Amino acid sequence: MSQAAKQRVLTGITTTGTPHLGNYVGAIRPAITASRDTSFESFFFLADYHALIKCQDPDHVAQSSREIAATWLALGLDTDKAVFYRQSDIPEIPELTWILTCNTAKGLMNRAHAYKAAVQDNEAAGEDPDFGITMGLFSYPVLMAADILMFNAHRIPVGRDQIQHVEMARDIAQRFNHNFAELFTLPEAVVEDHVAVLQGLDGRKMSKSYNNTIPLFLAEKQLKKHINKIKTNLLEPGEPKDADDSTVFQIWSAFASPEETARMRSEFENGIAWGEAKKQLFELVNGELAEAREEYNRLMDDPAYIESVLVRGAEKARAYSAPLLARVREAAGIRPMA
Amino acid sequence: MSQAAKQRVLTGITTTGTPHLGNYVGAIRPAITASRDTSFESFFFLADYHALIKCQDPDHVAQSSREIAATWLALGLDTDKAVFYRQSDIPEIPELTWILTCNTAKGLMNRAHAYKAAVQDNEAAGEDPDFGITMGLFSYPVLMAADILMFNAHRIPVGRDQIQHVEMARDIAQRFNHNFAELFTLPEAVVEDHVAVLQGLDGRKMSKSYNNTIPLFLAEKQLKKHINKIKTNLLEPGEPKDADDSTVFQIWSAFASPEETARMRSEFENGIAWGEAKKQLFELVNGELAEAREEYNRLMDDPAYIESVLVRGAEKARAYSAPLLARVREAAGIRPMA
Repeated sequence: MSQAAKQRVLTGITTTGTPHLGNYVGAIRPAITASRDTSFESFFFLADYHALIKCQDPDHVAQSSREIAATWLALGLDTDKAVFYRQSDIPEIPELTWILTCNTAKGLMNRAHAYKAAVQDNEAAGEDPDFGITMGLFSYPVLMAADILMFNAHRIPVGRDQIQHVEMARDIAQRFNHNFAELFTLPEAVVEDHVAVLQGLDGRKMSKSYNNTIPLFLAEKQLKKHINKIKTNLLEPGEPKDADDSTVFQIWSAFASPEETARMRSEFENGIAWGEAKKQLFELVNGELAEAREEYNRLMDDPAYIESVLVRGAEKARAYSAPLLARVREAAGIRPMA
Repeated sequence: MSQAAKQRVLTGITTTGTPHLGNYVGAIRPAITASRDTSFESFFFLADYHALIKCQDPDHVAQSSREIAATWLALGLDTDKAVFYRQSDIPEIPELTWILTCNTAKGLMNRAHAYKAAVQDNEAAGEDPDFGITMGLFSYPVLMAADILMFNAHRIPVGRDQIQHVEMARDIAQRFNHNFAELFTLPEAVVEDHVAVLQGLDGRKMSKSYNNTIPLFLAEKQLKKHINKIKTNLLEPGEPKDADDSTVFQIWSAFASPEETARMRSEFENGIAWGEAKKQLFELVNGELAEAREEYNRLMDDPAYIESVLVRGAEKARAYSAPLLARVREAAGIRPMA
């Protein structure tokens, strides 16, 4: 991190599904906080081309883009400081994807974990190894490389499962730099091990695939209902409770200050009733989200405003991508004749 | 061919290598003739994104684009009637490529002849099956599908080796039409079996890979030299010669009228000297090409003019591709929010 210029941090947000408390605590809140650090330049994008790989339901893709854009804006992403754009508004990205495709070894894609896992599942089921696998799934790391290299991003905050893809983007960049011209920054994965993993209603990791989530912007009444459904044990009021074994406490500590967390811990020791603990949890979570929820609802009713923010974001993003793509084309031999 | 609207014919021209007489007789001349048939709409494009698959030499890609554009223009392609554009001027094509990538089974690509042949070569050489194979080679049929479907072309004139790729474009179109919306015309390969295959200097098929070509726009002196190098037998002047066994006659008949061809056949029977036959062949070929060669040289010295023709062609092409891509995006769920 010794370069003089500002380090560029790039985060993609896949536009499938409705954000839940786990996404908020584990990804959205820390990213928005990090974007306020003005020693970095932050890029955030709605990865709707990625959504097409996983989702064949167009209404769902469109609705999800809207919800996710509204979520980030409602939670205070400062789009004057950060560059916030929709991937599909940047035509330079698919074009760079093709140019990189010509410079990527097929063998590299064969080794991608996600692809290999899908092949293993097929083989275990006695199917053809590539059964049900699309070219989208297979060549997804090339698109991700284009996402990253298009903005010469230095740092890519990712979960452990995405480290390999950032390394592939590095490989692809190195190959291009070597064969044509030194145009691409070599990106680095920044693994966020310290980030909180929130538990879901059943105590497992909160995840859409477990169907145990608390959606982020539920109406107050619904939020209360969901929190009341969090699994607890049968200990009565007055009986001491183990905070470290409790999903209620786990979610509490993701929202509370250290002081409030310590206080709740002693309330558990003192035998707080589950109903009371959940009531306080609801108030805490609701307190943190109420204002953003109101803004979220306002934004969802004003899609034209969201669109205008994204259009402005695309202009900012293309101020980077268009000149870089022009240099990439020139280097690869795609040149105007005069 | 019973539809009311005009059938659209689309031809891609890979921008590697310098055109030779074989390309002219086998591809360029018939295509330009066909483009004058106003019962069709003709689309011709310089396939420079395809060139990137095969060629890592940027100067060669750029130079070749220029030579090939100048060749087609010099030979009289009427760019007021035909749509003549450079693939890389159409940003909708790589974007459509990605959308189709998400809707293409990997298994389909596994079955492509060109890929399978490369794997076989590797296996025969004891290498890893994917040794040296890029993602460009592997996913090339998806780009070709985008080239075709982007303009809803009906007829794709191809050699036998390309039939499978047109069938793949059909498959991909059907899958999209079925999953999302009936947006794509199902293209048909039109195999040109009747087209002349020209013999090269050594009597084999004229081909860059045999190093036996006569470049199309050689200077007059060089053209004469090349024609004099055509392999003949040792029969003396006055000895009857077998026209059907002669490369000189084979090339003659590709350029001459039926009457002139019949006359030369009897000259062969009457024992024309090889030197005299070659002299007449030179005059015939030179007569057909002299004017175009002059125009070619003029165009090569005026790249700004070529560029302006291509820019205008891109505008015409994008009048088709931009609205269709907008409908494709809408159908797949990539939509403006308001």
